[in-house]
Amino acid sequence: MKTFKKKVGLPPGSLIFTGKQHIEEIMIDIIDYGPDSFKELKSENIENCFPYRDAEGITWIDIKGVHDSKLISKMGEYFKIHPLVLEDILNTNQRPKMEIFDNYLFIVLKMLSYNEAENVINSEQVSMIVGSDYVISLQEKEEDVLDPLRERLRKGKGRIRKAGADYLAYAILDVIADNYFLLLEKLGEQMEDFEDRLLKGSNQETLMKLYILKRETFLLRKSIWPMREVVTQLERADSPLIMNETIPFLRDLYDHTIQIIETVETNREMTAGLIELYLSSNSNRMNEVMKVLTIIATIFIPLTFIAGIYGMNFAYMPELDWPWAYFGVLFIMLVIGAGMLFYFRRKKWF
Amino acid sequence: MKTFKKKVGLPPGSLIFTGKQHIEEIMIDIIDYGPDSFKELKSENIENCFPYRDAEGITWIDIKGVHDSKLISKMGEYFKIHPLVLEDILNTNQRPKMEIFDNYLFIVLKMLSYNEAENVINSEQVSMIVGSDYVISLQEKEEDVLDPLRERLRKGKGRIRKAGADYLAYAILDVIADNYFLLLEKLGEQMEDFEDRLLKGSNQETLMKLYILKRETFLLRKSIWPMREVVTQLERADSPLIMNETIPFLRDLYDHTIQIIETVETNREMTAGLIELYLSSNSNRMNEVMKVLTIIATIFIPLTFIAGIYGMNFAYMPELDWPWAYFGVLFIMLVIGAGMLFYFRRKKWF
Amino acid sequence: MKTFKKKVGLPPGSLIFTGKQHIEEIMIDIIDYGPDSFKELKSENIENCFPYRDAEGITWIDIKGVHDSKLISKMGEYFKIHPLVLEDILNTNQRPKMEIFDNYLFIVLKMLSYNEAENVINSEQVSMIVGSDYVISLQEKEEDVLDPLRERLRKGKGRIRKAGADYLAYAILDVIADNYFLLLEKLGEQMEDFEDRLLKGSNQETLMKLYILKRETFLLRKSIWPMREVVTQLERADSPLIMNETIPFLRDLYDHTIQIIETVETNREMTAGLIELYLSSNSNRMNEVMKVLTIIATIFIPLTFIAGIYGMNFAYMPELDWPWAYFGVLFIMLVIGAGMLFYFRRKKWF
Amino acid sequence: MKTFKKKVGLPPGSLIFTGKQHIEEIMIDIIDYGPDSFKELKSENIENCFPYRDAEGITWIDIKGVHDSKLISKMGEYFKIHPLVLEDILNTNQRPKMEIFDNYLFIVLKMLSYNEAENVINSEQVSMIVGSDYVISLQEKEEDVLDPLRERLRKGKGRIRKAGADYLAYAILDVIADNYFLLLEKLGEQMEDFEDRLLKGSNQETLMKLYILKRETFLLRKSIWPMREVVTQLERADSPLIMNETIPFLRDLYDHTIQIIETVETNREMTAGLIELYLSSNSNRMNEVMKVLTIIATIFIPLTFIAGIYGMNFAYMPELDWPWAYFGVLFIMLVIGAGMLFYFRRKKWF
Amino acid sequence: MKTFKKKVGLPPGSLIFTGKQHIEEIMIDIIDYGPDSFKELKSENIENCFPYRDAEGITWIDIKGVHDSKLISKMGEYFKIHPLVLEDILNTNQRPKMEIFDNYLFIVLKMLSYNEAENVINSEQVSMIVGSDYVISLQEKEEDVLDPLRERLRKGKGRIRKAGADYLAYAILDVIADNYFLLLEKLGEQMEDFEDRLLKGSNQETLMKLYILKRETFLLRKSIWPMREVVTQLERADSPLIMNETIPFLRDLYDHTIQIIETVETNREMTAGLIELYLSSNSNRMNEVMKVLTIIATIFIPLTFIAGIYGMNFAYMPELDWPWAYFGVLFIMLVIGAGMLFYFRRKKWF
Repeated sequence: MKTFKKKVGLPPGSLIFTGKQHIEEIMIDIIDYGPDSFKELKSENIENCFPYRDAEGITWIDIKGVHDSKLISKMGEYFKIHPLVLEDILNTNQRPKMEIFDNYLFIVLKMLSYNEAENVINSEQVSMIVGSDYVISLQEKEEDVLDPLRERLRKGKGRIRKAGADYLAYAILDVIADNYFLLLEKLGEQMEDFEDRLLKGSNQETLMKLYILKRETFLLRKSIWPMREVVTQLERADSPLIMNETIPFLRDLYDHTIQIIETVETNREMTAGLIELYLSSNSNRMNEVMKVLTIIATIFIPLTFIAGIYGMNFAYMPELDWPWAYFGVLFIMLVIGAGMLFYFRRKKWF
Repeated sequence: MKTFKKKVGLPPGSLIFTGKQHIEEIMIDIIDYGPDSFKELKSENIENCFPYRDAEGITWIDIKGVHDSKLISKMGEYFKIHPLVLEDILNTNQRPKMEIFDNYLFIVLKMLSYNEAENVINSEQVSMIVGSDYVISLQEKEEDVLDPLRERLRKGKGRIRKAGADYLAYAILDVIADNYFLLLEKLGEQMEDFEDRLLKGSNQETLMKLYILKRETFLLRKSIWPMREVVTQLERADSPLIMNETIPFLRDLYDHTIQIIETVETNREMTAGLIELYLSSNSNRMNEVMKVLTIIATIFIPLTFIAGIYGMNFAYMPELDWPWAYFGVLFIMLVIGAGMLFYFRRKKWF
Repeated sequence: MKTFKKKVGLPPGSLIFTGKQHIEEIMIDIIDYGPDSFKELKSENIENCFPYRDAEGITWIDIKGVHDSKLISKMGEYFKIHPLVLEDILNTNQRPKMEIFDNYLFIVLKMLSYNEAENVINSEQVSMIVGSDYVISLQEKEEDVLDPLRERLRKGKGRIRKAGADYLAYAILDVIADNYFLLLEKLGEQMEDFEDRLLKGSNQETLMKLYILKRETFLLRKSIWPMREVVTQLERADSPLIMNETIPFLRDLYDHTIQIIETVETNREMTAGLIELYLSSNSNRMNEVMKVLTIIATIFIPLTFIAGIYGMNFAYMPELDWPWAYFGVLFIMLVIGAGMLFYFRRKKWF
Repeated sequence: MKTFKKKVGLPPGSLIFTGKQHIEEIMIDIIDYGPDSFKELKSENIENCFPYRDAEGITWIDIKGVHDSKLISKMGEYFKIHPLVLEDILNTNQRPKMEIFDNYLFIVLKMLSYNEAENVINSEQVSMIVGSDYVISLQEKEEDVLDPLRERLRKGKGRIRKAGADYLAYAILDVIADNYFLLLEKLGEQMEDFEDRLLKGSNQETLMKLYILKRETFLLRKSIWPMREVVTQLERADSPLIMNETIPFLRDLYDHTIQIIETVETNREMTAGLIELYLSSNSNRMNEVMKVLTIIATIFIPLTFIAGIYGMNFAYMPELDWPWAYFGVLFIMLVIGAGMLFYFRRKKWF
Repeated sequence: MKTFKKKVGLPPGSLIFTGKQHIEEIMIDIIDYGPDSFKELKSENIENCFPYRDAEGITWIDIKGVHDSKLISKMGEYFKIHPLVLEDILNTNQRPKMEIFDNYLFIVLKMLSYNEAENVINSEQVSMIVGSDYVISLQEKEEDVLDPLRERLRKGKGRIRKAGADYLAYAILDVIADNYFLLLEKLGEQMEDFEDRLLKGSNQETLMKLYILKRETFLLRKSIWPMREVVTQLERADSPLIMNETIPFLRDLYDHTIQIIETVETNREMTAGLIELYLSSNSNRMNEVMKVLTIIATIFIPLTFIAGIYGMNFAYMPELDWPWAYFGVLFIMLVIGAGMLFYFRRKKWF
């Protein structure tokens, strides 16, 4: 939400990029395909896409980098996109949602993936405009989880080359959902690690990591819950843009989304449980330590008192002159100390 | 979710087994029955089932082991099952659900049972394809809770031989639900054990076990809650595959499901209560110990101070030379110690 | 749920008693009445009830003891009750519910009452079959809260003798609801007791009792919540068995049910509050004690140190020979001790 | 719920007072008014009201004291009130509700006000029977928050004299709602007081008061939440007794009710927050104290040990005879003590 | 709610200001505009606005200061506003809401902004009356976040000059929503600050600030949640006052509102998490300190006991005369101390 300030008070539909620029140069991947044809080209220029809008095949325009509001504006003009939609594309803090327009659908989602190197969750906004025979997808970053999809298109595997633009949109959503599964798998492994570590001992740092894990899970929920609505709306959309044959696939995607949400919720309860376990096992361990230390002190304090008695300098202390008094006192001290130890032990205090 | 990775990016409907293989050899049990006929055979070959599809009686094909995607694919082709359904069968992390197709119903459930030997909950996915005169059930493991059902079929007891494939599907669901009851009974007993143990004392290990119990209850919920939806959808399904006479039985099953869910919820609140009780009784006990130890120290520290006074080596300390000073000081110490004890006692500090 | 095991795998509608037998001999109370007639007889034999089914008056058959599955089966046959209903009657762990059949209604409820002698809550399952001119009620135990109702029937007080079987069923439900109120009154008194006790001090035992109270409240909820559904369904039942004149009474009963549920919820929050109060007042008291003890120790440790100084045996310690050194040191110790006390006091540490 | 016992088992509609009698003599205020007429009289006799039922103006009969079941019964007979309604009037533990009958509406509410003298919340049940040209209101106690309303009627201010019985009922409800606001204002002030007190320090008594505040808020909720339903039902009631012109006023009242409920919820969360703050600030303060005390002890214990060393009576202890040993040891002690202090400080332990 | 007292018992629609007066003089900004015309004037007199009601352009009357009930009453009379609406305008504790009347809409909202200087959240009530060609907005305070809007009107930027009164109302709501975003950005930054601070250490003051943050978030929720309803009602309002072209903008505003609400909820969970983290890291740190201190004491207490032994004055203590006894004892002490340290270390107690 960081750069929101510059937009306050501007009229709605003002095209201002309000995010963090993740990529130097905007890259545009254009794929035009049909059951028997396939064409692919890369460009940095949005105008190069325009001829494909009216071409016969299905066109997939994948734009990486959304920080150039002029490019977005040009695209919007040519494809007749509503200014509020363009504004949503440029605002990378958009909440996942879907909107139905007469000649296109607008979908915004969060693409989440796990960056193993830096041990953080990568989040990036993906917008899609789904027309009758084109799909425009817009990503913030360079790394590309959509490559397997491109590969399938190239090879013509499955039904993808024969189906329409709605099926391509579904396939993109499906890849995004698959990446959610991978991410949750990673987080699940981390949680198991934590559990092992908790069993062995823990420190302040563990607490911090648990807290970070909790926050991550919380932010995950925020990205993933709205996806359910998006997929439901797609499945039920009364739009000619979505063909009947695609519905079972959307239903399947819906099932996946539910499963993802349930896994997130499970993770969430697990994290809460881990924190609870951390706190109570920590306090247990602490208590054990304090108990042992206090027992040691408690045993020696009365003994020191006895030593103190016979360290007094009174002139008349008859015991001082008894020959075996010293060893007698030592023996008494031993008895008292052992007695206390025995008593504490029997009471199961340590 | 462990082996999910290999599926990312593949087209939907790709038949890849994503689970853990629990069984060496796939076994197929085929039972063909009618009011007056009964025939049973075992096979390892899916093709042996095909003739029964069009035979006159009801056919129950029970497949144990789902790791062979080729077998599933062959079966799917012959019985005209949608590829997405076959994919769901091969994914053993499927969420329980039900889907209505024109010529069959697809049901996925979790079969849960308690393994007394290893003290763990066994979970296995059971898929069912319910056609007009056949039921295909697919299990992951060998152990078989469906045997009593087979026995009933053999003996022709009850209405099962006279009823249709939908009643057979209901009977399978009913047996699964009965096993949930058995499992919950076991967990309930464990919880009562815990309660007794807590009353007697507890340690770090108890906390760990409580935490595991909590997690088990949580995972149970995840398996059992969706079963409610499945049964409701079955009961209300507007499908010719479900006959009117079966509806009251499904309603009965629904009641059982509600009761199972309520028991799970009860267990859950009980576990939370036990953890709470564990923590507070633990902290109570700890506090009692610390209090007693601290009281001992507190009594002896001032007495040691007095002994320290008369251990000083000043040249002019008149008391040192008084004849009864030593016993006087001992007496004063006794009075102070007893006074403190009495005061602490009266204040109910121990 | 204890004896559930023997039912697993049996066909639905198998008549097996799955509860605890509370009564030696089954007793059947038969009352046949009309505006001007009243007849009452006791029997141990279900066949004695059969003539009354077709007799002119309203017949109330009250069966105490449901462990005899043969008797239930005979009754079911004669009154044409669905086998699943009979199974529910024999399963005393049934969840409260209501079902509408063509010629009768089936109602299951929990009758709860407080056993003052043993200080526990008595729970018993009450099933009812409400026909057009008969009501069959089935109870588990002998003690009978329905006696005032019988008395009203005998005396012909109120509208009960003039009304139909549905009103009798309502009257039974009303008595059960009244007993819930009595029970909640008892629990409310117990809670007030606890509060008083908490203000005076508490121990480990109080915690255990609070925990038991919490569990009781929780089980109460489980019995009482579904009653709301039952009464709503009765009120809205589109069945000729329920006459229009009875509807306002059912609405009144519904209001009572809501009030009972709200009281249970209040009790629940109260118990949670009491536990919270117990824990925090306990920890407060503990802290106070530890603080006082620590302050005593803290004051004497530095003084003991000073005494230790002058207990050293160095050859050259000039102070040792000063005439007033001893009293001076005593005075300094007094000043230090008093100063610390004063400082701690001003800081409100005790 | 205290005197409920005597009602158990009685037929519904039995007129028995089940509350606490708050008033010696029943007082009845009768006001009969129209746009141009106004008449007021007081009576102790319900029969005096009867002529006004059929008189031309709107009649408001305000009965203070509901413990006389005969009077209520007489009234009920004359005004043709359903016996279950009369029973509800006599049961002062009724849950707030509204019921629509053919010729009258029945409304039960709780009137809450703050008793500054005794520092408690006064609660009293107010029932209303709203006919086409009369309103009967029944209160438990003498103190009267409805006086301003009577004053408005006397002076003919506002639209009240011109409007019908439904507007009078609305006006009574409005005054009750206004008193809720006043009460919440009082509680809000108390909460601010508590906050200030918490910042300055707190004790066991504060905890008790917070707990009482929490319970009060909880009971408040129970009285106020159902009012929302009552007002909604009134607004939507399809009854000729409620005129169209009154609807906007009821909508306004509904807004007030929502605001009251939100304030109660805010209070509730605030109280929970205060308790949380109390507990954690208490434990913080306690920890601070313990830390300081422990630091003092920790510094002096090693020093005392050193003094103890040189208090030993060994024959061969060379240091004892060094001329500057004493001051050297004192200096070393000073260095150790200061070093520890410095170290603890740098570690920010105090 | 402070000055509510003076309103109790008054008839509804009584125009009494119940808030805090924030502004000395009421200021009225009048802007009258059309696609090609623009006129702006300031006045302190409500009568000056009247001619614009029937003028051709859209008129925006912005009244700053609502404490003058006479002015509001005059305005209400001229613009034919319902007295209950006027009452709501004068009550600055109104809950955000929207009401549809025949010839105007009434909207109440809270305008929230962050006062950087005083570090508090400014809250002010904004009411709007939206007619067919005029908008009356009423604010409590002078500072004005609506200036950018006025600027847009002056410059004729965007569609605002061409659209109707409903679009102006939307634009005002949009600016208010933008300010919510800014406020949440601020609070988010504060929360990140807190997190950093918690990692470094914390004190009682941090707890207080966290508590204040929690309360602010809570009050924020109370202001922002109802806005959702307001915008939904506007979007779905079946009123000729809202033109079809404005609907997409309202839908966009609705999306923003959802996002604001989600951010508030995130903040809320974050704050709860921070408090939890504060408490547990605090208790962790405390425990660490206590552990170290206790370990120091525990090591020296037994050593002091040994020193005490040899400080005893018994006549027959053979060790005292051994030549190397002193150094032997010192060595033994060293061994014991080092052994304990080593043991504690190995047990990972510090």
